[in-house]
Amino acid sequence: MSNNTFGTHLCLTTFGESHGKSIGGILDGCPSGIVLDLSKIQGALDLRKPGTSTLTSARKEKDQVEIFSGLFEGKTTGMPIGFRIENKDVKTKDYERLKEVYRPSHADYTYAQKYGIRDYRGGGRQSARETANWVVAGSIAKQILKKESLNITTEITQVGPLKKSEYPKDFLTLMSKLILETKQEGDSLGGIISCKVTNMPIGLGEPIFNKLQARLAMAMLSINAAKGFDIGSGFGGAALKGSENNDAFTKNTSGTISTQTNHSGGVQGGISNGNDLEFRVAFKAPSSILKKQKTINIHKQEVELQVRGRHDPCVLPRALPIVEAMTALVLADFYLLHKLSKA
Amino acid sequence: MSNNTFGTHLCLTTFGESHGKSIGGILDGCPSGIVLDLSKIQGALDLRKPGTSTLTSARKEKDQVEIFSGLFEGKTTGMPIGFRIENKDVKTKDYERLKEVYRPSHADYTYAQKYGIRDYRGGGRQSARETANWVVAGSIAKQILKKESLNITTEITQVGPLKKSEYPKDFLTLMSKLILETKQEGDSLGGIISCKVTNMPIGLGEPIFNKLQARLAMAMLSINAAKGFDIGSGFGGAALKGSENNDAFTKNTSGTISTQTNHSGGVQGGISNGNDLEFRVAFKAPSSILKKQKTINIHKQEVELQVRGRHDPCVLPRALPIVEAMTALVLADFYLLHKLSKA
Amino acid sequence: MSNNTFGTHLCLTTFGESHGKSIGGILDGCPSGIVLDLSKIQGALDLRKPGTSTLTSARKEKDQVEIFSGLFEGKTTGMPIGFRIENKDVKTKDYERLKEVYRPSHADYTYAQKYGIRDYRGGGRQSARETANWVVAGSIAKQILKKESLNITTEITQVGPLKKSEYPKDFLTLMSKLILETKQEGDSLGGIISCKVTNMPIGLGEPIFNKLQARLAMAMLSINAAKGFDIGSGFGGAALKGSENNDAFTKNTSGTISTQTNHSGGVQGGISNGNDLEFRVAFKAPSSILKKQKTINIHKQEVELQVRGRHDPCVLPRALPIVEAMTALVLADFYLLHKLSKA
Amino acid sequence: MSNNTFGTHLCLTTFGESHGKSIGGILDGCPSGIVLDLSKIQGALDLRKPGTSTLTSARKEKDQVEIFSGLFEGKTTGMPIGFRIENKDVKTKDYERLKEVYRPSHADYTYAQKYGIRDYRGGGRQSARETANWVVAGSIAKQILKKESLNITTEITQVGPLKKSEYPKDFLTLMSKLILETKQEGDSLGGIISCKVTNMPIGLGEPIFNKLQARLAMAMLSINAAKGFDIGSGFGGAALKGSENNDAFTKNTSGTISTQTNHSGGVQGGISNGNDLEFRVAFKAPSSILKKQKTINIHKQEVELQVRGRHDPCVLPRALPIVEAMTALVLADFYLLHKLSKA
Repeated sequence: MSNNTFGTHLCLTTFGESHGKSIGGILDGCPSGIVLDLSKIQGALDLRKPGTSTLTSARKEKDQVEIFSGLFEGKTTGMPIGFRIENKDVKTKDYERLKEVYRPSHADYTYAQKYGIRDYRGGGRQSARETANWVVAGSIAKQILKKESLNITTEITQVGPLKKSEYPKDFLTLMSKLILETKQEGDSLGGIISCKVTNMPIGLGEPIFNKLQARLAMAMLSINAAKGFDIGSGFGGAALKGSENNDAFTKNTSGTISTQTNHSGGVQGGISNGNDLEFRVAFKAPSSILKKQKTINIHKQEVELQVRGRHDPCVLPRALPIVEAMTALVLADFYLLHKLSKA
Repeated sequence: MSNNTFGTHLCLTTFGESHGKSIGGILDGCPSGIVLDLSKIQGALDLRKPGTSTLTSARKEKDQVEIFSGLFEGKTTGMPIGFRIENKDVKTKDYERLKEVYRPSHADYTYAQKYGIRDYRGGGRQSARETANWVVAGSIAKQILKKESLNITTEITQVGPLKKSEYPKDFLTLMSKLILETKQEGDSLGGIISCKVTNMPIGLGEPIFNKLQARLAMAMLSINAAKGFDIGSGFGGAALKGSENNDAFTKNTSGTISTQTNHSGGVQGGISNGNDLEFRVAFKAPSSILKKQKTINIHKQEVELQVRGRHDPCVLPRALPIVEAMTALVLADFYLLHKLSKA
Repeated sequence: MSNNTFGTHLCLTTFGESHGKSIGGILDGCPSGIVLDLSKIQGALDLRKPGTSTLTSARKEKDQVEIFSGLFEGKTTGMPIGFRIENKDVKTKDYERLKEVYRPSHADYTYAQKYGIRDYRGGGRQSARETANWVVAGSIAKQILKKESLNITTEITQVGPLKKSEYPKDFLTLMSKLILETKQEGDSLGGIISCKVTNMPIGLGEPIFNKLQARLAMAMLSINAAKGFDIGSGFGGAALKGSENNDAFTKNTSGTISTQTNHSGGVQGGISNGNDLEFRVAFKAPSSILKKQKTINIHKQEVELQVRGRHDPCVLPRALPIVEAMTALVLADFYLLHKLSKA
Repeated sequence: MSNNTFGTHLCLTTFGESHGKSIGGILDGCPSGIVLDLSKIQGALDLRKPGTSTLTSARKEKDQVEIFSGLFEGKTTGMPIGFRIENKDVKTKDYERLKEVYRPSHADYTYAQKYGIRDYRGGGRQSARETANWVVAGSIAKQILKKESLNITTEITQVGPLKKSEYPKDFLTLMSKLILETKQEGDSLGGIISCKVTNMPIGLGEPIFNKLQARLAMAMLSINAAKGFDIGSGFGGAALKGSENNDAFTKNTSGTISTQTNHSGGVQGGISNGNDLEFRVAFKAPSSILKKQKTINIHKQEVELQVRGRHDPCVLPRALPIVEAMTALVLADFYLLHKLSKA
């Protein structure tokens, strides 16, 4: 099994380093006959793109996706969809200075130890640039799901210590202010992204080792800087009693069954129950900060590091489409697999 | 890819329902030549067993593992290890009453919807009885890792609202008291388990879609009642700035490299960095409570449910060996895969 | 990916050695709602069983399959089907003499070299006893396919130098005579099994690396003593010109499309075309012969070997249900996967 | 599991249609630290290229491979190797005429039935153009194996009815003559390719369902127009007795163990035994012939078909590097997996 492949039937396999010629991937398992809107794929990429706001990195990547295969006269053919995104505006010089330094809390040290060689330019394969591939695949996944009316939404619910629940009205203003202040300090911020999927079909997710929440957790913890995942009442719910946390079934006036609460976050026993899917992802602050840091180089000497280059003071605005893409990939995969549940 | 298989090279495939004849599994990918201590496997199972304390379910399962293959004269042969555990002390009658009822926050409803049929006896395949299989495999995984001196420890750090950090001295006493009180109320409790692995080798974990933290998250969210996972500074760390959260490298007097802090929880870029692996798993309170609940039956009628039977008021004491087992499976798998990193 | 797992969605994972406690397996991916006829599974096993004829080994294995899971009130539940077959009538003493000898053309030497340890009793995991597991799974696979009217038949078309095409009338009589004569000589015979599947659905098989003929070839070459596979005109067809070998499409009086010939053997581009699936499997003569042979022992000494025990002079009669089982597994897997071809 | 992925640990995933923008793939699982000679990859592609001889198609594809990732300063980094080959000299007009016709013994009909849509231009994904991807990956696989001194050689041993064994001296001359004559007739020829691997390491191949011969059979039957595979004495050996076919072990004067014959073709129990690996692949004559043929169109009308365009009268000369590439992929994968056999 490839370590660069995600999915059970709908499989995304990717390649590419931050400062190589291009990144790209192959999405296999897409059924034939889906009218694919390429402008939506490009649109999703544009949302992820840096350089669009003072809140994100100033780097201007022109993320133009090229699709090579798997389409004929606008429709999917059932064949693998190969694509790539060229790496432009690559300033490798910014990284020359770093070739001998292990940046704190980056993967420089672990890659070097594991592989004995590393592409130090822009972080190489460890760079979040890889996630542009995921956004392409996620956008196709959404179009596979189009028949279903499900709707994936993501929002930032915490930035640094600032919680939306505490400032529901002014959150966006306060958040922007906090990010800009932190940028000026040369520092960075973490936070929490909340994802909600409405109009969920019942039956997505596969017990025992391919449960919906387990696969989502894996998907989310694959995202650079992600450090936590919880679903439904999650970590907070650990404090509740069973009688408080159980979602009581009730019969609606329309005769359908639903639950009075959704502490389960839309999943029971690894399978979606038709309620909204609700989960959260915790991100650490980006490791690249402009403040001086003490560290070690490859010769085991203590050195002082001052990162330059164009870095995001907070990854959350750009992580929103990534969380959405990975959610779409997970759901589309389970949507296909579910067709095989019953004889 | 089988939904009942876990692992990349070291693969556990399992079967079994709570009230079927037996449960069991096949562990494939175990190298030859390992002296396997069968008493340790049985010992791990005994730790998970209910009925050993007033804090856990009164059910007395005799979990005796039978190993069928993959061993010769006490050593592994490189062949798959087949095993099973018979289901004894099964009281199906306790469940007859439940065959038409969807228990709140159980998987009764989702299984019924997804498969159109369900084994209602003891929860069938959705039962946590399945985790006995994982404990068997996890114990073998630990013995694969024996050459390495790594040490996996787990502890309960929160039960209901009671946090160990707030009562470091009296935590166990207070916890026992709280669980017994809640049991008497006919209610149940969730909590948090913290896992730490010391003496971690460097290099375990495989980017991009098989990162150590992603695979651990998947493993933990596979456990019944688990609702959250975080690693290192995790959800709490989302509030920290980069300058606070970064783990500065430092040179030890012995000449080795380490970090001053471990906010990363032992992983960078999906690969272990040699620091202690530290993560937490949040569990909801068990859905089976003795208090009366309103719910719906398969005829869409509103009914009152009073669960009887032998249920755990709090799963955390019994979940400790399960967290440990799944951690060992993940680490042993990556330990083997890492041998293929370099030419 | 497990080396002891076969299949893409319908996955069989097996364990067991010839003289261990038992062999068995887990069949995962079976849809829910199939009424499973257990007597058919046992019936298929009985066909494979030795000791039923003077043509086969005198060993009397009582191959009784026990099914542990995945069934509820006679129907599949969508959960994995765990099963095992106990090893009875095991005469390990027959093999004690062989523990230090590498039998010619057996896997004794390669297992010893690869794993540094081997279970010499009855060949351990290399024994064809493993195929009893396949017969169990294959019988379930056939029941998955029951909705389709396809029919799998196998026959011996060559034994040693004796070809059915040359003696179409007397073939069975001549074959029995030849096998008995060879048995008396203490020697053994190979041959060819031909398999035909009628009423094939169109669309089974998945390009590019999961083609129907490729997966069948893999399945057949997994069978002990199998040394060749061809489909349609196969090796013989290599001598034909394109104009002779092409299957011309024609329109039937009923308006349907078919081909005038079936040199393709029912597959084009890796996908079934609705014609009969026709392929052949070549088997070598069993390596266990009663004649004296010179060989080498584990101390690298030249020794004389005289195999005793109960051995088949010709595996083909017992291989028929195995070929059939593996064909059914391949077809049922592709039958399920095909449901995902179109949106 | 992706249908467009081949391999267990060393995994090739591919995309691309004959007349799309480009074809390409991702090779994952390559260890770090291998000095990769890119000119060898291009050299292997050049061998496969048509238009180099009167014996093969006149089409002049400029098969220039671009490698996008996985390399740093000339060495592999352990990261996936992404590559593509642009489709140039594409004459789609040649195929416009065929868009409504099902060519006999091509996959036009089966793709149309399975997917409800097909890219008719040059056969789309069913085209043998895909094998250029395999040659790229196979060349990298060979370089992974470079430490081992194994040597893969392939030769044509039969073309149409002409067998090398019958004309050992004049075979190449007679073959060329036969191919040119058949080309002038507007017809095509099949044949047999024999592959031999010398200096084989012991221990490659993984029982039970990933045996060396089974994986090779799968690889070979994935090649367009391949209809058969056998190993060692193969189909011919089916006529031999056990006493004739067994490979007797013997002790060499140097003290090493070898066998007097190699009827096993280098494999026992699915594992290489150190003898030469010897197998054969049967190919049918190409389905595209210039002679007029009767067939059916998508409206179920009988039509007369005269294929034009540039077609190979015999695929065997161009199939040699493909057989070699797939062999290298299989062996390199098993070479890596074997490192995990023993503790």
